[in-house]
Amino acid sequence: MYSEDALVRKIRRRFSAAGAEVGIGDDAAVVDSPDGFRAVLCSDLLVENTHFERRTHPSDAVGFKSIAANVSDIGAMGAVPARCLISVAVPADLDESWIDGFLDGAAEACRVFEVAVVGGDSSSSERIFVDVAMMGHVEPGRAVRRNGARVGDGIYVTGCLGAAALGLTRLESGSRTDPAIRRQLYPEPRHRLGRRIAPRATAMIDVSDGLSIDLGHIVTESGVSARIERESIPCHPGAGIEMALHGGEDYELLVTAADLPSEVDGVSVARIGEIIAGDSNRIVLVGESDEVILEPLGWRHFRSGARRASA
Amino acid sequence: MYSEDALVRKIRRRFSAAGAEVGIGDDAAVVDSPDGFRAVLCSDLLVENTHFERRTHPSDAVGFKSIAANVSDIGAMGAVPARCLISVAVPADLDESWIDGFLDGAAEACRVFEVAVVGGDSSSSERIFVDVAMMGHVEPGRAVRRNGARVGDGIYVTGCLGAAALGLTRLESGSRTDPAIRRQLYPEPRHRLGRRIAPRATAMIDVSDGLSIDLGHIVTESGVSARIERESIPCHPGAGIEMALHGGEDYELLVTAADLPSEVDGVSVARIGEIIAGDSNRIVLVGESDEVILEPLGWRHFRSGARRASA
Repeated sequence: MYSEDALVRKIRRRFSAAGAEVGIGDDAAVVDSPDGFRAVLCSDLLVENTHFERRTHPSDAVGFKSIAANVSDIGAMGAVPARCLISVAVPADLDESWIDGFLDGAAEACRVFEVAVVGGDSSSSERIFVDVAMMGHVEPGRAVRRNGARVGDGIYVTGCLGAAALGLTRLESGSRTDPAIRRQLYPEPRHRLGRRIAPRATAMIDVSDGLSIDLGHIVTESGVSARIERESIPCHPGAGIEMALHGGEDYELLVTAADLPSEVDGVSVARIGEIIAGDSNRIVLVGESDEVILEPLGWRHFRSGARRASA
Repeated sequence: MYSEDALVRKIRRRFSAAGAEVGIGDDAAVVDSPDGFRAVLCSDLLVENTHFERRTHPSDAVGFKSIAANVSDIGAMGAVPARCLISVAVPADLDESWIDGFLDGAAEACRVFEVAVVGGDSSSSERIFVDVAMMGHVEPGRAVRRNGARVGDGIYVTGCLGAAALGLTRLESGSRTDPAIRRQLYPEPRHRLGRRIAPRATAMIDVSDGLSIDLGHIVTESGVSARIERESIPCHPGAGIEMALHGGEDYELLVTAADLPSEVDGVSVARIGEIIAGDSNRIVLVGESDEVILEPLGWRHFRSGARRASA
């Protein structure tokens, strides 16, 4: 039986909480907040059999993704990620190697994204459950929200979409070698790019739930509508337009701005459409010979489709 | 089927995130951090069938406790709780009244403890799972840790112990009227008292896992041992010494200090023993005619005992 005490000791050994006045192992962590900055806070859940399955997702990928998803959210505010709390509940009979892998993945993500683990909580549960809460910082008034898109703004996407969804279908069909699998298991958020783009952005969000849902958040919050061109959407090689529109988990940035260059820091930035007036908050998807209203299906729809296809 | 979107809308309506530059509904929240203070961070998990059962714990109690447990941790640092993120995963077929009750309880706790909900995450899962991450603040260098207890310090406990454990046994035996039940369901952390006591404390922790475990943390972290007197331990009326020693969830404060008054802000403060030398980090429990080593059994042991008793 895997004890919580052993888990806490293991987490504590792994994450030294560099720079914290009080780190892991007390009632709470105590950290600096940079003078003149605002604290930026978010959290992200990963639930077994909802977000991942033990069969398809190695434990280090779960650890990596739990950090990466939050880094992506902080980056999509134009902010800098800094510290996090990891809460993890696992079955008492879970193999210790799962925990070790999970911590390996989380530690690797913290290293790559320059984030420190300063605390958290642990518990037993019937299914694996991970919640990471992250704190970052941003200059006052400089956070980029979802509600600032203006009529006439261009709509931009960094990198390409559909890779994570393609990777998931590959995983579920038993493959372990397709390059898209890496995008599903070890996503690399665009937080540094977000920080660069932020001064020019009127609205920004990360593509975590899928373009159809995430652009939906921008138009709803901003009180506008959108018109995007199917041919302009950058699809990962091998991923179809459905994966790009609804797949999610790509952790690319979706940005509205008067203008953005076609490349920032070596990453392509594609203009996929523009913000239009309309308080119906619709997304019009324009094809070569047709126009349809894009429904916000997102990754849940897509994933259940993938499951059916692989069953 | 209860959708996550509906849950997020409900949470957002309920918690206005007063004072946050960016509140619920964006990638992350943006909040002030007071100049010259340090941020204090913690999180606390509540897992169905580990920490609570739907049969015995009404949903508003789960919501209340998810906030209270974190307020208690922040208070045990001598810090002031301020803002939190609520992550909640629930079964898709969960009755909406459970969610409403949960949010009622969380909102009531936020009102009473003066904490604002600024964000979080939601998901579906097979069992109910709640993780609250909280941020507070404290003056630099003023946080009271677990590792400062010195040989000769007195060991003090606020209020009385065993009430939450007694309440649990009452609940599990079908009672709904015993006054101790309120201490189990709607605990009132001593965060304001912790702030008052902090300047005189060498170490401080909240009694969440049980006196035997929590005092164990202090002696281990401080590199000392402890000697406590059975007769001095303040037991809630009706709660036996076992409940007081191991029950946990009382959210009282356990403090080491050269000296503390017997009452602070109307709350009794009992001296139950003293810190002694000894790197074995033992706790000696002194009775009228015997001395035993107190094993760190804590609430898990106690609770499974209570379950057996009520089965």
